[in-house]
Amino acid sequence: MLKYRTGLKDMPSYDVVERDWQIKVNANECNMNLPPMVEDRLMGRLSRVAFNRYPNEEYDALREQIADNHKLQKENVLLGSGSSEIIEKLFYCFGGTKAKKIVYPEPSFSMYRIYAKAAQATGIPVALEEDFSLDIEKFVNTVNEEKAALAVICNPNNPTGTGYSVSDIEYIADNIHGNCALLIDEAYIEFYGRTAVGLLSSHPNLIVARTFSKAYGLASARVGYMLASTAIVTMIEKAYMPYHMNVLSLATADIVYQMRHEYVPRIQMMIAERKRMSAELGKLPGVTVYPSETNFVLIRYAKAAKLNEYLESKGIGVRCFGDAPGLKNCLRISMGLREENDQWLDAIRQFVEGRA
Amino acid sequence: MLKYRTGLKDMPSYDVVERDWQIKVNANECNMNLPPMVEDRLMGRLSRVAFNRYPNEEYDALREQIADNHKLQKENVLLGSGSSEIIEKLFYCFGGTKAKKIVYPEPSFSMYRIYAKAAQATGIPVALEEDFSLDIEKFVNTVNEEKAALAVICNPNNPTGTGYSVSDIEYIADNIHGNCALLIDEAYIEFYGRTAVGLLSSHPNLIVARTFSKAYGLASARVGYMLASTAIVTMIEKAYMPYHMNVLSLATADIVYQMRHEYVPRIQMMIAERKRMSAELGKLPGVTVYPSETNFVLIRYAKAAKLNEYLESKGIGVRCFGDAPGLKNCLRISMGLREENDQWLDAIRQFVEGRA
Repeated sequence: MLKYRTGLKDMPSYDVVERDWQIKVNANECNMNLPPMVEDRLMGRLSRVAFNRYPNEEYDALREQIADNHKLQKENVLLGSGSSEIIEKLFYCFGGTKAKKIVYPEPSFSMYRIYAKAAQATGIPVALEEDFSLDIEKFVNTVNEEKAALAVICNPNNPTGTGYSVSDIEYIADNIHGNCALLIDEAYIEFYGRTAVGLLSSHPNLIVARTFSKAYGLASARVGYMLASTAIVTMIEKAYMPYHMNVLSLATADIVYQMRHEYVPRIQMMIAERKRMSAELGKLPGVTVYPSETNFVLIRYAKAAKLNEYLESKGIGVRCFGDAPGLKNCLRISMGLREENDQWLDAIRQFVEGRA
Repeated sequence: MLKYRTGLKDMPSYDVVERDWQIKVNANECNMNLPPMVEDRLMGRLSRVAFNRYPNEEYDALREQIADNHKLQKENVLLGSGSSEIIEKLFYCFGGTKAKKIVYPEPSFSMYRIYAKAAQATGIPVALEEDFSLDIEKFVNTVNEEKAALAVICNPNNPTGTGYSVSDIEYIADNIHGNCALLIDEAYIEFYGRTAVGLLSSHPNLIVARTFSKAYGLASARVGYMLASTAIVTMIEKAYMPYHMNVLSLATADIVYQMRHEYVPRIQMMIAERKRMSAELGKLPGVTVYPSETNFVLIRYAKAAKLNEYLESKGIGVRCFGDAPGLKNCLRISMGLREENDQWLDAIRQFVEGRA
């Protein structure tokens, strides 16, 4: 018997097997590849990579660029393998024993529960209201009663789509106890805009996480970042290996970030599609559509599992949540291309109108 | 005061700042970029990446290719961000409390000590003999007396260059207690050949780690892998995040591995250069050259620190170990191009002959 770490055996195994969907709207990806001008510049950049060398100035180059854009210093920026790694490492750094509590709303990003467990911490979910709004007092009280080490808000929230105002975030930051770090996971913020970055200078315990995977359509490259005080970045950095980021992903994110104005029209387009599809879905009998500030829409429908099966049979992949807490009979659909959206909407319409 | 994980504060911070060396032979990198035919195929492959999609079949494609080459199944292969991450996660999985002991020779790869600490385990170094050979009995006895959870051998050993025979590795595997996993870190095995992979089928607790960073010149991409029983891979996988590998690095390693015959001549060249430079260094008064089975040479010289300063002043970066245990007055020099090797050798010769 090998002497594995206590608890490892009970961790879930991931075997993310994807089907070859005709329409893939199950992972909140951007359904467009690189804008042509970005692709041109990127291929030129990749052809100049010193593949044989360990990462060097590429890490700081991207940090500096991100810092500049947020009027911060590079010492306020930490890069990770997607915001996944940013979140995983933060949970690790504020965990270590069951006495360390990490508080987050539920339903929210499903990995919070798993990263809390992996960090040997205690995850404390705070249930969202029926309409997926957050009872801010309840959240603050839970953080304070539990003497939490870390509190997390995904804004706008995945998978509900709900956005929280900057003043709500500020209220939380102002009212949780002073020994608690507050992480705002802004994976979808480009579709919403109401970022907490402006609160960083006045709130030294605040941390903002971002990703290149969603609005910037770089899920393949696994690049995310966090913004925080130098003191926090210096501590959290200790949990990362040397050379934890690879040059190809860094160079790719660097070019994309330099050319981020190229993404404004497509972000606008995804927002417009979300509005259009929310309105269309809202016309369907028995379908509840939750207001969304992201590139996806969450719906509730009594026969969600059957609907999901029907969509699968048509080669359409959406996200079905099964019996996840608060998400019974919910489906999450990311915004694809306009034609793709028309197709999955048609399929849903056929099903709910009994024509399937 | 934020409630950071116990011990985090005492972890070292990495700030790997490299100078712009004229000759860089300090990191055991390959000093050649991609072979032209590999570059052609790789650029074609990268231009076909779906940047907007999360990693999918790329992970299994590389696993299958590596498994096939070793006559294993893909379930015996786990990919990581360099063999660094492979080692870090293994230490994590066999750590968790101070009662978990991880045994490794010293001097060896300096990160073992740090990964043991990061894993909250107790690192137990076993001192190499004066000539850097390993007292196998002593190693086995330490593993058994300490009831170690994990034993590690770097073969050939970094930074000493020492190779251990397959029968030595087999003796260790046969004689350590049955609850201990044995990791053979084969980062430099392509320069030596005597791999432990053939022992995997008969030794269920054996794990072999490999990297694309050295012989395959892909340090930029951060790709490594481990080979082990399905049972071990299934457990260790739990310590990795979903989508922990990015598509660009996976695609790059995939092309390089498909075309690995292209690397045979350059590996031969690096071995020939190591032999040539070992012989030349051995002619210098006061310089001890340790036998190496890798792409680098370790020397000992009374005025190593001064020599290092002199090389630095000439724009030549080698690795100086300062006061690291067992490595006093040692310098490690990786094999560069033939012309680069001639240049650093000239500089060393000037210094030791008092002409500097």
